Amino acid sequence: MIKCLSRLLSILILAASTASAQDNPNIVLVFMDNFGWGEPGFNGGGIIRGAATPRLDQLADEGLRLTNFNVEVQCTPSRSAIMTGRYAVRSGNGTVPLGEGVYGLVQWEVTMAEMLSEQGYATGMFGKWHLGRTEGRFPTDQGFDEWYGVPNSTDEAVYSSLPDFVDSGLSESFVMDGKKGSAPQKVRPYRLDYRPLIDRDLTDRAIAFMKRQAEAKKPFFVYLPYTATHFPTMPHPDFVGKSGNGPWGDLLMQIDSYTGELLDTIDDLGIAENTIFIFTADNGPEALSAGETSLTVETAVHGSAGPWRSSLFTGYEGALRVPFAVRWPGKIEAGRVSDEIVHAMDLFPTVAEIAGGKVPDDRVIDGINMSEFLLGQQEESGREGFVIYMGNAIFGVKWRNWKLHFKEQTGWNGVLREYTMPRAYNLMNDPQELDNVLFPHTWLPKAALPQLEEHVASLKKHPPIPAGAPDPYKPPN
Amino acid sequence: MIKCLSRLLSILILAASTASAQDNPNIVLVFMDNFGWGEPGFNGGGIIRGAATPRLDQLADEGLRLTNFNVEVQCTPSRSAIMTGRYAVRSGNGTVPLGEGVYGLVQWEVTMAEMLSEQGYATGMFGKWHLGRTEGRFPTDQGFDEWYGVPNSTDEAVYSSLPDFVDSGLSESFVMDGKKGSAPQKVRPYRLDYRPLIDRDLTDRAIAFMKRQAEAKKPFFVYLPYTATHFPTMPHPDFVGKSGNGPWGDLLMQIDSYTGELLDTIDDLGIAENTIFIFTADNGPEALSAGETSLTVETAVHGSAGPWRSSLFTGYEGALRVPFAVRWPGKIEAGRVSDEIVHAMDLFPTVAEIAGGKVPDDRVIDGINMSEFLLGQQEESGREGFVIYMGNAIFGVKWRNWKLHFKEQTGWNGVLREYTMPRAYNLMNDPQELDNVLFPHTWLPKAALPQLEEHVASLKKHPPIPAGAPDPYKPPN
Repeated sequence: MIKCLSRLLSILILAASTASAQDNPNIVLVFMDNFGWGEPGFNGGGIIRGAATPRLDQLADEGLRLTNFNVEVQCTPSRSAIMTGRYAVRSGNGTVPLGEGVYGLVQWEVTMAEMLSEQGYATGMFGKWHLGRTEGRFPTDQGFDEWYGVPNSTDEAVYSSLPDFVDSGLSESFVMDGKKGSAPQKVRPYRLDYRPLIDRDLTDRAIAFMKRQAEAKKPFFVYLPYTATHFPTMPHPDFVGKSGNGPWGDLLMQIDSYTGELLDTIDDLGIAENTIFIFTADNGPEALSAGETSLTVETAVHGSAGPWRSSLFTGYEGALRVPFAVRWPGKIEAGRVSDEIVHAMDLFPTVAEIAGGKVPDDRVIDGINMSEFLLGQQEESGREGFVIYMGNAIFGVKWRNWKLHFKEQTGWNGVLREYTMPRAYNLMNDPQELDNVLFPHTWLPKAALPQLEEHVASLKKHPPIPAGAPDPYKPPN
Repeated sequence: MIKCLSRLLSILILAASTASAQDNPNIVLVFMDNFGWGEPGFNGGGIIRGAATPRLDQLADEGLRLTNFNVEVQCTPSRSAIMTGRYAVRSGNGTVPLGEGVYGLVQWEVTMAEMLSEQGYATGMFGKWHLGRTEGRFPTDQGFDEWYGVPNSTDEAVYSSLPDFVDSGLSESFVMDGKKGSAPQKVRPYRLDYRPLIDRDLTDRAIAFMKRQAEAKKPFFVYLPYTATHFPTMPHPDFVGKSGNGPWGDLLMQIDSYTGELLDTIDDLGIAENTIFIFTADNGPEALSAGETSLTVETAVHGSAGPWRSSLFTGYEGALRVPFAVRWPGKIEAGRVSDEIVHAMDLFPTVAEIAGGKVPDDRVIDGINMSEFLLGQQEESGREGFVIYMGNAIFGVKWRNWKLHFKEQTGWNGVLREYTMPRAYNLMNDPQELDNVLFPHTWLPKAALPQLEEHVASLKKHPPIPAGAPDPYKPPN
């Protein structure tokens, strides 16, 4: 009888959610920069990291928290994957660009913003792009109606005034403002004077955008890739000294407060029940892990991956696993926590399903539609693992609670090691990935490697777009 | 006006709590073995460690969670400190005993059980003692009306059947049952057959004890030092396979379930509002940290200190910081979280204050009465730091968010390093204690070392009881 009731309930929930799919729910994607798993209070951070995060914790309490949400381990590839639903290597975005050449997303790619645009969404981006800085590769070329932010990364704010850089003849980076259909305009140089202030402006513009769309009764997609938690650590003047625990604590307060403002806006506009609000990050923290020489100073490198090993630019859990909370009142069960494996790539097809959008069928989409998982219609995410890239190199695979490493790098600037036999780690027994247990678990490659073989075969069949490919790009087949 | 109301409220709460002090609230102290900071869900563990811990999380939600509760870094000294309110080295219990000689607490010491006994409490202990295994040194010689459990530690259950041990002529350890006033009786050998079952029996006996005392309307103190999370990892048959994530996940379910049973009993007896329920642990996990060779196998060594470095038997936060949650409905504010420094030694004078008990004035008590902090009458714990011992050696000091290490040991079996200049770590910036920032923080020793100087002077003035001192022991002065 109880089983029967529970079945009935699932069907009712399913019916409700199917209905909602036609409502085109708003989507807000807050995307932190180099923000480790261990930072928010909802993952055991908060107060031990310098400041409580009551609004983030409340967000998680009101929705679903994923403890095993994975990303690519660098900034550009992670942003490429979340925008396209594809491994970044397929798009020629396997690494952070270091040179000044052409890079980023080619026009042929279909972004989440383009997909939602076609569904009638207003699409606004406020923040850091890092997927192109030249004509035709700005966010407003890739499906966003409007964009305010920086094309590249925040280290530029550090070096932009250095004499050596100024003398180099390299081009300086600017804060930009753009509308779809015309070239974005330079607003101001992105230097240290503006560095503490930018996220305040991003928040204000995101709020104004949401208000405008709500008034126009237009469904919207807000992509909000904040900059604050990337080095250098420089909180907004409103928060300097407020935590009593130094600049990082102040920043945690700032993040929490800005997220609270966004949520309050949504609640005040009366659109909470029709808005999917996601808080996550691009990759693990900058802070280095045990056994490494670090350069931590109070205003420079910070971060904690919680129990997980190491930092960004590695194949360890500290790089891959980031905080994740999603709220959708009435649709996503409040207070649910899941350790199922989810990858940033899965957001594209999942959001497409929920918004009634179209997933391109002329290319490989690596993401999995997880709408039924998110909506509580099934316990499993449907993903058993994924291939771990560090840059363009395959470092290993994750499969259930296990990892197989063919390569390891013990920190972003650490030593690269390559193994003739893969190392096996059990993530539940050994979250610090220290104990190679390939023996006695020699069955593990049989279980974990088929996904890698399939992936490699798929790359052969569908060759990746070369990094820096010219536009208009034409796929080889 | 609001300030005035808030002041009035504080006075009312104070009045209420002063009244309660005369009510002799029951005290239940659940004391886990080698249970890392990162294990319970309330510290970001739970599901990522193998099983959700809903009852522990609820306990924390209903009371006060301390994120900076510290212990000694080994089993025996931690138990000595929590029982006496004194650094274990003062009591001759600085290290885990390895030999077969006389060790543990001398009669001259005053334990929490003795102090509460004098206040008319019924005192029951169920579990592991590790503070003496010879006549006059059992729990029932130290203030407990009754005791069921093991005198020593759980590694004995592993070796008790090994031929080499059997041939050695050494004495085997037994599960014992005792009443105050007579010698405890051997119930059965403590071997692997009983190892998975013992915590079930401890729970049943604790529940029966609480029911008996509640019926007799007698205030009670239950000290419940569970064994399950010490190696070897062997969950009770009721939980084997239940988590789907191996033996450690099963154990987390077991711990959570048993704690739930205790709380349900208290609630069902209608004594929740007059019962202080504490959940904590003796020291950090067995699992080893980065850079060490470990011997993790599924049924042996496990554990996670969450974001903190290393394991038991070190001076790192992973050894010192353990999970802590306390519930006292109506007295301790629900949902409060504090990162104030608290030490296990502080429980003795705090409990004494609340229970109207007497703190001995003829010896040094290192613990601080934190009753006002616990009851929310002040934000600060009153403790700015403490001396870090590893065994009988001073490894360093903790002061606010900082640590100074004179010695470091990189794991329980790691290399011991000694420094001519102390290393300084900032625990908020650098929870993994990797970056020595003595430069530029050369002011830090001036702030952090006075407590150490005072402690060393106090040890000179009041010489410690020698380890294995005979009873009756007489203090030198």
